[in-house]
Amino acid sequence: MGKLYVVGLGPGDEDNMTLRADRAIQSCDSIVGYHVYVDLIKDRYPGKKTLTTPMTKEADRCRMALDLAKSGENVAMVCSGDSGIYGMAALIYELRGEETEPEVEVIPGLTAACSGAALLGAPLTHDFAVVSLSDRLTPWETIERRLDGAAKADFSIVLYNPASRGRPDHLRRACEILLRTLPEDRPCGVARNIGREGEGRTVLTLGQLRDTAVDMFSTVFIGNSATRIVNGELITPRGYRDV
Amino acid sequence: MGKLYVVGLGPGDEDNMTLRADRAIQSCDSIVGYHVYVDLIKDRYPGKKTLTTPMTKEADRCRMALDLAKSGENVAMVCSGDSGIYGMAALIYELRGEETEPEVEVIPGLTAACSGAALLGAPLTHDFAVVSLSDRLTPWETIERRLDGAAKADFSIVLYNPASRGRPDHLRRACEILLRTLPEDRPCGVARNIGREGEGRTVLTLGQLRDTAVDMFSTVFIGNSATRIVNGELITPRGYRDV
Repeated sequence: MGKLYVVGLGPGDEDNMTLRADRAIQSCDSIVGYHVYVDLIKDRYPGKKTLTTPMTKEADRCRMALDLAKSGENVAMVCSGDSGIYGMAALIYELRGEETEPEVEVIPGLTAACSGAALLGAPLTHDFAVVSLSDRLTPWETIERRLDGAAKADFSIVLYNPASRGRPDHLRRACEILLRTLPEDRPCGVARNIGREGEGRTVLTLGQLRDTAVDMFSTVFIGNSATRIVNGELITPRGYRDV
Repeated sequence: MGKLYVVGLGPGDEDNMTLRADRAIQSCDSIVGYHVYVDLIKDRYPGKKTLTTPMTKEADRCRMALDLAKSGENVAMVCSGDSGIYGMAALIYELRGEETEPEVEVIPGLTAACSGAALLGAPLTHDFAVVSLSDRLTPWETIERRLDGAAKADFSIVLYNPASRGRPDHLRRACEILLRTLPEDRPCGVARNIGREGEGRTVLTLGQLRDTAVDMFSTVFIGNSATRIVNGELITPRGYRDV
């Protein structure tokens, strides 16, 4: 019986991977994942078998990884960002069910809340909420309720999956919900293509964000009531300066 | 003029550091940080100057790092976990103010939301909120309001700084606020000493969590309405299985 590692690669290429993730992949016979992410790292691991599936075939991909491990291989199932946060780790455990084999180890990776915040300055120095705008698996009413609750409780907010081909207006709709509670001039930021070619950032207001087009490779940050722009950086102070 | 890297080390020792963080520290003349974290990694970087300050001297530590960089050294200011999330990056930018020198680069690291979740299973597969229970710099009323808002909006919740010598009962008080909205049997987890000697985990209910003692090296997870325990693992499904 082999072992299955569910590995978060962090954003972009191998540079944002942890030493632990790198060592785990090196120890495996095969790498399983969505083809875009496998392509980003496969040159670092010559001689490994790679198996890929399309984006919407998450359950197929996980079953393939579990079956390979059951057949005796050590398998690295790789995810962009973290392996848990909106990642595949839960599905692997669900599909394994009450069996104890194969052994599973979840290896965390840098999620876009961390890596996007670092690109924009330091917007998450205080309490924050992470919300995905994808309604593929979540009713839009649930997303609205979480946005509204996060704004009313003065969380900094990070938006994952702010847009896709099928839902180009989700970010505008989300901003309209937030603007019921938050002011037009609330500092915000967009991080794009983190750790990859085309990496970029924009610092802007919530009013401007409402009318801004973003793509599926973007992560969006909305400041809390203390967030401000210092020398072009999006900063949420924690109060250390005044101690 | 030198350059200042604000580096998140991830939890515990060097194993959870990214390749990018490792390379940045290698390129520096000196390492600045809280002594516990500098001690965890200094053997990996022989020949570097190390400068440490006590835990509550955050502003002194940041000024020391900025001054060193201004004097011409390349400096790695290291933080446990992420460098931004409850970290020092914002304070560095605040203290640098409107000056553009020294150059600052924030290098993200694995925060305890990612690493603790991986230890417990996969509790953060859906939207979540992160709240610190430390009232050293935040009024307790603000913390209560965020806990209440996160519970009402059905976020999974991660609690940082759930206890310290000065506030042993904060976790109990937080659980009592959550229990106004959430049921006693809501699945929860505690991750301890992540990535370090004494690493451990407990999966339990919110009612049990209320009466559990945790220390300052613990991170606490409260599930959302879909979270359940599968084969001992704390799992929040996203719904991929049903696609």
